[in-house]
Amino acid sequence: MLPTVYQGSLALLTDLYQLTMAYGYWKRQRADRLATFHLFFRKLPFQGGYAVAAGLELAIDYLRHFRFADDDLSYLATLRGNDGRPLFEEEFFDYLAQLRFNGDLEAIPEGTVVFPNEPLVRVTAPLLVAQLLETPLLNLINFSTLIATKSARICQAAQGEPVLEFGLRRAQGIDGGLTSARAAYIGGASATSNVLAGKLLGIPIKGTHAHSWVMAYGDEREAFADYAAAMPNNCVFLVDTYDTLEGVRHAIEAGHELRRRGHKMVGIRLDSGDLAYLSIEARRLLDEAGFPDAAIVGSSDLDEHVIQSLKQQGAKISVWGVGTRLATAYDQPALGGVFKLAAIQNEAGEWEHRIKLSEQRVKTTIPGRLQVRRYFKEGHVAGDLMYDELLGEPDGGAIIDPSDPLRRKKLKPELESETLLKPIFEQGELVYQSPPLAEMQARTQAEIARFHPSVRRLLNPHGYPVGIDQKLYRLREEMIHETRQMEEE
Amino acid sequence: MLPTVYQGSLALLTDLYQLTMAYGYWKRQRADRLATFHLFFRKLPFQGGYAVAAGLELAIDYLRHFRFADDDLSYLATLRGNDGRPLFEEEFFDYLAQLRFNGDLEAIPEGTVVFPNEPLVRVTAPLLVAQLLETPLLNLINFSTLIATKSARICQAAQGEPVLEFGLRRAQGIDGGLTSARAAYIGGASATSNVLAGKLLGIPIKGTHAHSWVMAYGDEREAFADYAAAMPNNCVFLVDTYDTLEGVRHAIEAGHELRRRGHKMVGIRLDSGDLAYLSIEARRLLDEAGFPDAAIVGSSDLDEHVIQSLKQQGAKISVWGVGTRLATAYDQPALGGVFKLAAIQNEAGEWEHRIKLSEQRVKTTIPGRLQVRRYFKEGHVAGDLMYDELLGEPDGGAIIDPSDPLRRKKLKPELESETLLKPIFEQGELVYQSPPLAEMQARTQAEIARFHPSVRRLLNPHGYPVGIDQKLYRLREEMIHETRQMEEE
Repeated sequence: MLPTVYQGSLALLTDLYQLTMAYGYWKRQRADRLATFHLFFRKLPFQGGYAVAAGLELAIDYLRHFRFADDDLSYLATLRGNDGRPLFEEEFFDYLAQLRFNGDLEAIPEGTVVFPNEPLVRVTAPLLVAQLLETPLLNLINFSTLIATKSARICQAAQGEPVLEFGLRRAQGIDGGLTSARAAYIGGASATSNVLAGKLLGIPIKGTHAHSWVMAYGDEREAFADYAAAMPNNCVFLVDTYDTLEGVRHAIEAGHELRRRGHKMVGIRLDSGDLAYLSIEARRLLDEAGFPDAAIVGSSDLDEHVIQSLKQQGAKISVWGVGTRLATAYDQPALGGVFKLAAIQNEAGEWEHRIKLSEQRVKTTIPGRLQVRRYFKEGHVAGDLMYDELLGEPDGGAIIDPSDPLRRKKLKPELESETLLKPIFEQGELVYQSPPLAEMQARTQAEIARFHPSVRRLLNPHGYPVGIDQKLYRLREEMIHETRQMEEE
Repeated sequence: MLPTVYQGSLALLTDLYQLTMAYGYWKRQRADRLATFHLFFRKLPFQGGYAVAAGLELAIDYLRHFRFADDDLSYLATLRGNDGRPLFEEEFFDYLAQLRFNGDLEAIPEGTVVFPNEPLVRVTAPLLVAQLLETPLLNLINFSTLIATKSARICQAAQGEPVLEFGLRRAQGIDGGLTSARAAYIGGASATSNVLAGKLLGIPIKGTHAHSWVMAYGDEREAFADYAAAMPNNCVFLVDTYDTLEGVRHAIEAGHELRRRGHKMVGIRLDSGDLAYLSIEARRLLDEAGFPDAAIVGSSDLDEHVIQSLKQQGAKISVWGVGTRLATAYDQPALGGVFKLAAIQNEAGEWEHRIKLSEQRVKTTIPGRLQVRRYFKEGHVAGDLMYDELLGEPDGGAIIDPSDPLRRKKLKPELESETLLKPIFEQGELVYQSPPLAEMQARTQAEIARFHPSVRRLLNPHGYPVGIDQKLYRLREEMIHETRQMEEE
């Protein structure tokens, strides 16, 4: 059996400690206390200035189908503790069997630009249920957000020229490939090579031929001619199997033959060597031969930095094929998002704030039930305010960076603003419809355009102002002091 | 629909160009020519001295179920070329519909130590079929081999102490998590936190509680006591939610209470801060309190280098929890394996060698139908000989490093030897049974032990001798010269 095409329940797609904690909550009568958890990341990936939220639709699907199947429970019944006795009591399985997602969930829609500490997802549900969702939500949101962000950066470097995602063969597993194709598309990639992503997700797919086609013939001229004969309406000739510029000449011959037969050569692809030099020479050869419209596709270990450098060198590449470095986010293959408890009801049903301390200030969490309000000024973004809905409306003062209280910014309340976290589930009922992927892609583009170029800069970007309001800041500082004092007693 | 739990055919888990090439082969009457492809990588990952093959069982499963479903074909029928007309003729779909894997496949079993240029998988099949398998085989073998190798390195650094794989939340998708749990286990990890991997693959699973358990209570003492009350046979207390050493003291209290009730505290877990200092202090506290057997689990961005450093600092960690850096192979998240044509039948049914040139010598392929013979001397490995079965038995001279002809080594033919590529499919029929995962894990351990410590060194290892025999070396050099000359004509 291929675990990747597993057809059963995914309730066990979680870490064992979520289930042992769930059991503990159930045994100790805490399972039903309502709790609020935030899913957020602490640091922007790729040393960049922004991230692009993605993966929500996958999370929604997970939640809609969340239930423990009989074989899940019979597997759990086989687990033993250090005394050889069962880890879980039988009655717990009856409890799990009837469990469904019955909470509230708000989330920032896919394709939205997001920043550290902002909750991408907020869950308010019975403690036991929310706890069980930590691992799957992180798995689904972390990776998609990472790849959508990487894709947005690569597309930014390509300056509007098409980017094709080619990474399936190096992706981390089957849905490593599928999920990265989806997220890359949200981030701005025009198409993928992944046929299954085309079939399942409706993403445009692209592809023509590889070196093996040329090698199967041995003779490149014959190989191109035969390819053109077989598939005249999809001709991008890969020209670097033996000698690149000789390959361009052979492609031009095939292009003339295609033209004689009433077809059109789409272009050529360069997959190795000095892409700046070779693309300039190839462009010259193509133009001189009467193929000014033939595209030059470049591929070979590309990422946003290589594309930027090639553009600076005047490379004549018009389509960018990006594989491994996009599909795995090669320079930072994990986002590091976390899912933290921020508030919980006590026995009397009153909400209490919760904080997790850390010796590193940046790892100390923000308590409450957070909402994010993005302010706009003359069509551009001005800053993001996080406030605690348990404390009511935000106060109108400055926002304060929770990791650096000296960084403050005044956002006038009369500015236009938008609330980022949208209702997705209300008491377990889905109240949101994910837009088509193409709309998410358009959203990403529109969102990024509203940020100042200095925030969008690929390296050493300007920090965009994100902070909490003073009311929440004061509460948090008090909680930090109290917890520290408690420790010292 | 979650693409990750897709229940249908996986024949479309491929790049579009494999299908357009397949179509071309079919149209141009080359589909049925037998061809041999090798799947190999060119460079060891992680700057290490060895890799561990993995993923074969997944590939076998893929091949056994390889077929185009009706909805695959109806999707392909929707694709259009640049003239708006269908990419594929209708008759091609009838051809695809009856296609099964009907070739020979040899592979190096999972858990075997492997080196650059060695075929991990060798496919001899009709050109069209072999071509279609490039992407899925790479997807399945690349990632598993990468993670098994990473896991072996981490386990090596842990010097026999248990390593737990905790990476699901940061893994690249659902089967990024499942596949990495499987490969990490083959590489030597004792257990995973991933419950689904436990259920589906039978891998031992581990887990107790997270910070959120403590935060849900607010008071750490009460939290530990309640956890111990709920699940007395699975107590590893996470002690760093507020103050680590205070947490250890609270765990000790809970440990005493467990003991009074006839149970045993398994240990504590440290998840942040200076693990060297904290583990030494925690060990002292535990020993003084009468818990010399309590384990200290360490986690927090660990990899082989951090573990090695902690050991050098005398850290008293006895169990290593490794997440993101193992599950994503953080410092090199893709292996870069390729699948290259090396021989093909001509029209007359005679085998012809094929080579792919490159301006980089290391990227020029090795032609032929390669087999790998590993030689042993006094229980240790002596070197790997690659030879071409189309040229017959290897000659008895020295082996020559294909990327550096000055590196040669004589391997006496009378040495004990083993042939690494084993028959898996013969004319489409499965002739191999994958051993249980625990056997693969044992194999990895036994394999690695037979290599000299200088080859196993985590950084700057000694290069293990791998080369081709002189007969194949001469053929390859001739082919390189001929192809270059052909280009110059």
